[in-house]
Amino acid sequence: MALTLDDVSRLSPAASRERFRAGLAVPTAGWSAGYAQANLLMIDREAAFDFLLFAQRNPKPLPILGVLEPGQVSSDLLADGDIRTDIPRYRVYRRGELVDEPTDVLETWNERMVSFLIGCSFTFEAPLLQAGIPIAHIEQGRNVPMYRTSIPTQRAGRFEGPVVVSMRPIPASRVADAVRITSRYPAVHGAPVHVGDPAAIGIADLASPDFGDPVDIPDGTIPVFWACGVTPQAAVMQVRPELAITHAPGHMLVTDLRDSEFQVP
Amino acid sequence: MALTLDDVSRLSPAASRERFRAGLAVPTAGWSAGYAQANLLMIDREAAFDFLLFAQRNPKPLPILGVLEPGQVSSDLLADGDIRTDIPRYRVYRRGELVDEPTDVLETWNERMVSFLIGCSFTFEAPLLQAGIPIAHIEQGRNVPMYRTSIPTQRAGRFEGPVVVSMRPIPASRVADAVRITSRYPAVHGAPVHVGDPAAIGIADLASPDFGDPVDIPDGTIPVFWACGVTPQAAVMQVRPELAITHAPGHMLVTDLRDSEFQVP
Repeated sequence: MALTLDDVSRLSPAASRERFRAGLAVPTAGWSAGYAQANLLMIDREAAFDFLLFAQRNPKPLPILGVLEPGQVSSDLLADGDIRTDIPRYRVYRRGELVDEPTDVLETWNERMVSFLIGCSFTFEAPLLQAGIPIAHIEQGRNVPMYRTSIPTQRAGRFEGPVVVSMRPIPASRVADAVRITSRYPAVHGAPVHVGDPAAIGIADLASPDFGDPVDIPDGTIPVFWACGVTPQAAVMQVRPELAITHAPGHMLVTDLRDSEFQVP
Repeated sequence: MALTLDDVSRLSPAASRERFRAGLAVPTAGWSAGYAQANLLMIDREAAFDFLLFAQRNPKPLPILGVLEPGQVSSDLLADGDIRTDIPRYRVYRRGELVDEPTDVLETWNERMVSFLIGCSFTFEAPLLQAGIPIAHIEQGRNVPMYRTSIPTQRAGRFEGPVVVSMRPIPASRVADAVRITSRYPAVHGAPVHVGDPAAIGIADLASPDFGDPVDIPDGTIPVFWACGVTPQAAVMQVRPELAITHAPGHMLVTDLRDSEFQVP
């Protein structure tokens, strides 16, 4: 029996995760509306201090929502869940090369791995829409476009690499509102890192994103760039650890945290 | 030639550190006014992930200002300085027991140690004073009183223990102002964790602090409790790592960070 977008938006996070655990492999945009979705990075405990320090030094691209310690497969972010099965699709990297995109990682995961759950800008798209600010990639039915930039992260141990940003074209008269609204969500990337000229942050062509889909830029809008949770995937490709597991782009962990918990005054 | 408190308040952080490096062993309250002072914890890299995760899960008692990686002895928080010599007095713990209080740790430090620099509530005392809120321990010429509480930290790996708080008696009519002002400094413990009854957070007797000095409670004031950077020392005593090095209470690192950098809108 097919589920409509309206059906899945009303599922509890636990009910959404149950379907993904059973093998459903679809993007999570719109699932369990009102609940935060998270990026995943799993790496060996030996590299975990360097990565947590990398996140601490780069809180805009890498806001940590939770950490599962070695051997842990569940936490209060996914009550009764299993981080190895509850994401619709994973990516497995060996020495920085993508080698598999499975729907579970029961065989690949091991007791030494630490799972980092990282905030996602999906959380602040709902309040932008509620404020009447149009979001081009949603209107155009595409994934958000993401770009590597010339902005460096602050290095920690072996981890380094460029800040990856997501881009949303915002009507010029609403840029101030978009800044104000997203500033209130520091745990999901917060305020933009750049407004306007893509070339100023090393983006050659908006029509050719490094991740996600290109979007048409409506007249009267200006490109606005937010730090993006894909930044660790870029670092993993650069640092080439023996084994790393992430979610597949757009296929996030649906958590039990409400979006509203991330709003600050 | 003796230095007055007025003299030392005008020293640059580098000039203050230079004196401590030369062996001067005095408390740092009042030194290099306007610059942030930091708590220190040095532990072996093998325990560093657990501790950084402990800080990530307990940001109120453990706001991380900076981390020196294994082998590093300086950073932009102490330009041209050396973390092994630039604090007036250190404490050395072996398996949780205090074994020495030297003025440098050149012999004890080793290349495997990680240094965590943790925010200190001295930073928000200046704006409290500027707002006309009296601070009893300063008026009475004592160290701030600190207490172990019944509030647990959130465990991470081997690290656990009680939240330690500092207490300031605040005039009842100024409690709201004290909350508002300190809320704007989340990186130096932020808003109070408790207002009023000490017994409600497991403090039996305000006159017997676990660290620091008791203060007289002026009429018309109410005790207000803030999370305290001594919390990691309590955890170290409980967890008993092979070797840990901290600052001696009141003998902080004077950093190059301005107090004003910690204020949020």
